[in-house]
Amino acid sequence: MQFVRMATNRLQSLAHHLAATSPPPHPFDPLSNAEIEKAVQIIRAEKGSVHYNAITLYEPRKKEMMKWLETPEIVPRPKRIADVVVIAPGGKVYDGLVDLAEGRVLKWEHIDGVQPLITMEDLQIVEHVVRKDPKVIEQCVLSGIPAEDMHKVYCDPWTIGYDHRFGNNVRLQQALMYYRPHMDDSQYSFPLDFCPIFDAEKQKIIHIDIPDIRRPVNKAAPNNYHPASIEKEGGYRKDITPINITQPSGVSFKVSGRELNWQNWNFHVGFNYKEGIVLNNITYNDKGTVRPVFYRLSLAEMVVPYGNPEHPHQRKHAFDLGEYGGGYMTNSLSLGCDCKGAIHYMDAAFVNRAGESTTIKNAICIHEEDAGILFKHTDFRDESVIVTRGRKLIISHIFTAANYEYCVYWIFHQDGTIQLEIKLTGILNTYSMNPGEDTKGWGTEVYPGVNAHNHQHLFCLRIDSNIDGPNNTVFQADAMQGAGAVGSAENPYGNAFYAHKTEYKTVNESISDYDGVTSRTWEMANPNKLNPYSHKPVSYKLVSREVPKLLPKEGSLVWKRAGFARHAVHVTPYSDDQLHPAGRHVPQTSGEPSSGLPEWIANGDASIQNTDIVLWHTFGITHFPSPEDFPIMPAEPMTLLLRPRNFFTKNPALDVPPSYCSTPSSVAASKDGAPTSVLNLTDGESRLVDGKKCC
Amino acid sequence: MQFVRMATNRLQSLAHHLAATSPPPHPFDPLSNAEIEKAVQIIRAEKGSVHYNAITLYEPRKKEMMKWLETPEIVPRPKRIADVVVIAPGGKVYDGLVDLAEGRVLKWEHIDGVQPLITMEDLQIVEHVVRKDPKVIEQCVLSGIPAEDMHKVYCDPWTIGYDHRFGNNVRLQQALMYYRPHMDDSQYSFPLDFCPIFDAEKQKIIHIDIPDIRRPVNKAAPNNYHPASIEKEGGYRKDITPINITQPSGVSFKVSGRELNWQNWNFHVGFNYKEGIVLNNITYNDKGTVRPVFYRLSLAEMVVPYGNPEHPHQRKHAFDLGEYGGGYMTNSLSLGCDCKGAIHYMDAAFVNRAGESTTIKNAICIHEEDAGILFKHTDFRDESVIVTRGRKLIISHIFTAANYEYCVYWIFHQDGTIQLEIKLTGILNTYSMNPGEDTKGWGTEVYPGVNAHNHQHLFCLRIDSNIDGPNNTVFQADAMQGAGAVGSAENPYGNAFYAHKTEYKTVNESISDYDGVTSRTWEMANPNKLNPYSHKPVSYKLVSREVPKLLPKEGSLVWKRAGFARHAVHVTPYSDDQLHPAGRHVPQTSGEPSSGLPEWIANGDASIQNTDIVLWHTFGITHFPSPEDFPIMPAEPMTLLLRPRNFFTKNPALDVPPSYCSTPSSVAASKDGAPTSVLNLTDGESRLVDGKKCC
Repeated sequence: MQFVRMATNRLQSLAHHLAATSPPPHPFDPLSNAEIEKAVQIIRAEKGSVHYNAITLYEPRKKEMMKWLETPEIVPRPKRIADVVVIAPGGKVYDGLVDLAEGRVLKWEHIDGVQPLITMEDLQIVEHVVRKDPKVIEQCVLSGIPAEDMHKVYCDPWTIGYDHRFGNNVRLQQALMYYRPHMDDSQYSFPLDFCPIFDAEKQKIIHIDIPDIRRPVNKAAPNNYHPASIEKEGGYRKDITPINITQPSGVSFKVSGRELNWQNWNFHVGFNYKEGIVLNNITYNDKGTVRPVFYRLSLAEMVVPYGNPEHPHQRKHAFDLGEYGGGYMTNSLSLGCDCKGAIHYMDAAFVNRAGESTTIKNAICIHEEDAGILFKHTDFRDESVIVTRGRKLIISHIFTAANYEYCVYWIFHQDGTIQLEIKLTGILNTYSMNPGEDTKGWGTEVYPGVNAHNHQHLFCLRIDSNIDGPNNTVFQADAMQGAGAVGSAENPYGNAFYAHKTEYKTVNESISDYDGVTSRTWEMANPNKLNPYSHKPVSYKLVSREVPKLLPKEGSLVWKRAGFARHAVHVTPYSDDQLHPAGRHVPQTSGEPSSGLPEWIANGDASIQNTDIVLWHTFGITHFPSPEDFPIMPAEPMTLLLRPRNFFTKNPALDVPPSYCSTPSSVAASKDGAPTSVLNLTDGESRLVDGKKCC
Repeated sequence: MQFVRMATNRLQSLAHHLAATSPPPHPFDPLSNAEIEKAVQIIRAEKGSVHYNAITLYEPRKKEMMKWLETPEIVPRPKRIADVVVIAPGGKVYDGLVDLAEGRVLKWEHIDGVQPLITMEDLQIVEHVVRKDPKVIEQCVLSGIPAEDMHKVYCDPWTIGYDHRFGNNVRLQQALMYYRPHMDDSQYSFPLDFCPIFDAEKQKIIHIDIPDIRRPVNKAAPNNYHPASIEKEGGYRKDITPINITQPSGVSFKVSGRELNWQNWNFHVGFNYKEGIVLNNITYNDKGTVRPVFYRLSLAEMVVPYGNPEHPHQRKHAFDLGEYGGGYMTNSLSLGCDCKGAIHYMDAAFVNRAGESTTIKNAICIHEEDAGILFKHTDFRDESVIVTRGRKLIISHIFTAANYEYCVYWIFHQDGTIQLEIKLTGILNTYSMNPGEDTKGWGTEVYPGVNAHNHQHLFCLRIDSNIDGPNNTVFQADAMQGAGAVGSAENPYGNAFYAHKTEYKTVNESISDYDGVTSRTWEMANPNKLNPYSHKPVSYKLVSREVPKLLPKEGSLVWKRAGFARHAVHVTPYSDDQLHPAGRHVPQTSGEPSSGLPEWIANGDASIQNTDIVLWHTFGITHFPSPEDFPIMPAEPMTLLLRPRNFFTKNPALDVPPSYCSTPSSVAASKDGAPTSVLNLTDGESRLVDGKKCC
């Protein structure tokens, strides 16, 4: 009773604090620390003591939000509601909704047979437990590690994925085991061959998977990347001079709360524990007309299946977003290291297990970069020329998923293009191998005794298109030869080719794969609005070239659990609650039935024509490791573009000031002694290598 | 006689000049202006008066050159020989070789039935001739242009490609016709519907192709990109603040003649009139061992087929390198416009029609750029972290092919990757259309009355690999599912996958297409040298994802002429004279038989296994225009990578100084008050947007 009263008091003071100090949050704003704390107080008051798994913004319903966005001064502001996941005593999982203004729990649902994601706190516990477990110690000794060296034993705890022996009622992690000869050695050169299973409720190891063939701990020398090891091998290179990037007049973007305005673009930068960055209400100001482009863009899910068929490696197929949270694992970024130039940061607020709010400082980096030549043309006959340099705006975050890091860059261009670039870096997941052992092609010996298994990184991009309004249709575009043999009346010279468009009318029709031969793209179009010149629907085209097939076979565990990854594109009618294509709670799903996208496409005849739709795009890479990826991997880049097609009536960046421009008449006049350029905004800071300004 | 004497005198003075002032050129160096002039003098003396089409370095024979590169102090320096193409009176084409040291013509061969490429001078003439031709004037009047406005009529002269009516004994150009209402208007909004054929020998229009359906000149308002037109539409945007990029301590690369040294990379930068930049003898200093990687890299050819089947558009399929010369059309670059930062330029020397040497100043730009994060890892348990930023070195040139520009960037990375990036910009080739006319899918109305036809840009990258020596083998690598159904003994969980390698033993086996589904790559490997850890051959992998099919059909004119473009990859045994995959003289080839690569692969059984080989890779994009590409096109980027695989024993960039690094022990120590980092080289110039240095 006393607890409840105290909570209520604190609640009132928090509410007062919220009201007194700041304008109301934008409905897309992530919950603030204060809002998270308020939600916890409300839950404590009503539901008592629980462990908090997540408290995040319950995003405003789209219909309501669209109305508010249109006339915010008239339409009531959507309510602030917290979306909550808790684990109550006995391991009972509850999904809840909490109305922050009214101070009450709107929904409190016990969900059976699911496990919410594994938090950083959940991960941290396991290593301490394995070090003390007698059976783990026994295995370590068998591997060649003395029992007194258990402080040198480490583990990367992963969700168990799914293991039919244990089902999903018990919350489990599998501990991928490593050894560090010295505290500062990279453990990934010393993988151990057994795999303890951790029960989160009991805080105990309940089983150890032990392979038939034993592989004692690696005897090779450590393979490190820290300064002492580099110094030992000859030291750092000394021939890199600094490059300084400065913006003495400030940046070109404006931030208002979490709304960004830059070069005709306007959008809201959200962030949540699962997806990380969420971009909302992306619009482009087309000469005074604010045109909607995307309602919401995010990386919604990913899966990293490993290709070694031996038990228990089939369990290695992390859903890094749904099982751990791309937001939860986000790095706090540093000026001059992760980010260079003039930087604006945004923080991220979360809840911890105990119900306190936590903050990741500098979770999101916002900055501009020079983008090289935006367009150029020289007239060969009169030498008139235009050179215009481009600029880009980058919204980025980096998250660490145990061994790997993912650097996510959302890039806005002046020509109306939105680019998503992902850099993969960090450290390979490794397994032990005996001297002379054959990897059988399922992995590569990247260092003596270290087997890095083949794997894929498959990301699911969720595109909630809003191309001049919510009613959109998706067309598949394939570059195709014209009909008719060479010499025929319709194709006399055999050179005819065109973009073959396939309109997706139903969900089933939209389920499609990539085709590199036809340079397949997908156009999100508004069929109600034609480009006045081309008479084609206004659209944005998805250009994505890294689209491997999901390699685990149909019917395999990964195939069942990662339904979204079976095809490159699925299109679904919009539904507010369809955000997570592998399901809301991903750990320990069996894939029977498959959660998320497979459920949403069950009605294959549902219309996706000229209606509010979402396009789900799975892309990524297949990684066959090699020694140059070790002991830390040079970033492997991957990119895709969303490009305006028939959206504008002309190049929308024509009014970007050129660096230099002359016209035929100015060139002609210059021959009579007048200056050549009609505009010269050449960057005066560039220099020849000898420091001279001009040549 | 007097002429010859004069020439000889000049020759002696030139030779003296050469000897007195400079060290001998590197055997890969392009011919200097003096060498070009010397070649001309020798030819004039021996052969009399001719029109010069090209004088370029006859590259040293590889065998000889490899020996010289190995021990330049012992082996005689390969001779300087000029490779010459001239057109003698009567239109007779001669291929010649001139020994510059000995001052004599080594070879002088009359080549029948070929046309050497069209120079800028050749192009310039046509417009003057069409304006005065009575039949062209008649057609202009029919199109709605008064006869007195012929100075407002323009043409882009293209080689005729091939037209069976005219064959290849007469040197021809087709004039794509345009109109400019005002001198400063872009003519590409006013295409004319007829096409005069120009005879270069007679300097006359010999025919006009007139379509059945006539399309008078466009009545739409001009669509321009020059400042006056932007001002009329509201002016330039004013919200872009400068980004300054400076290197106050100078650049990190060293230039010695045309040899570049940067971050363990060493290579020679050549340039010729056809290919533009040529990179030779690319080596990587791997901890003191200089390891050869590529003997020669260049863009060897390209073709731009257009997809409109109506006569005479089938003739639009420019081989921009072989028909016009990527070097000849190269832009003179400007500091602070084309290039930003600290720049080193190289000039290019050519011969003109009259035999004088000419210079393109600043033809090649060499500069560094920050490359973002090179690698990063945070240990989630102890928060130790390393962040290392990357740097890249860029060798670039830009060439203008009539309406289009191609920006070519050869990029060297610290992790051993070489990247080729091409940006396509400039202006769409356009054709006229009547109001309400249907493009039939072969083009797009990008502006009223302006039809931009579908087209492809297909580039041929010539890779002369030298992976730890000249004896290399190419493997095709496909990501494949493991054998065995789900549940089988070999693939119990169905998750098995691996890189399926196909060794190319013969030329025929190497003829291959791209496969997006298997993420196909090609590995150039040295089978004689295995990586000590992975036991796989040292290799470089070609990662190229923009690889469309050649869309003109088998048997079509383009298919016959552009044999190289029929497949993504061909591998041939090395031969000194196989440089130009569409043939040495490309204009007006009929493709019967097909020149260049199709000849070289005729012996399909020739071995390409563990021998000196060349890999030819065709890649590019298919472009279906849209209004946002007009009146000038925002750059469309395209990229491919050459990545070391099993070449190094570890990440070769480990010794790049990190921006920040801490170790588990330093983090632990910091909790007792000591500093956290073990290395902190954070860029001190970066700032928060409010100008503050730290957060």
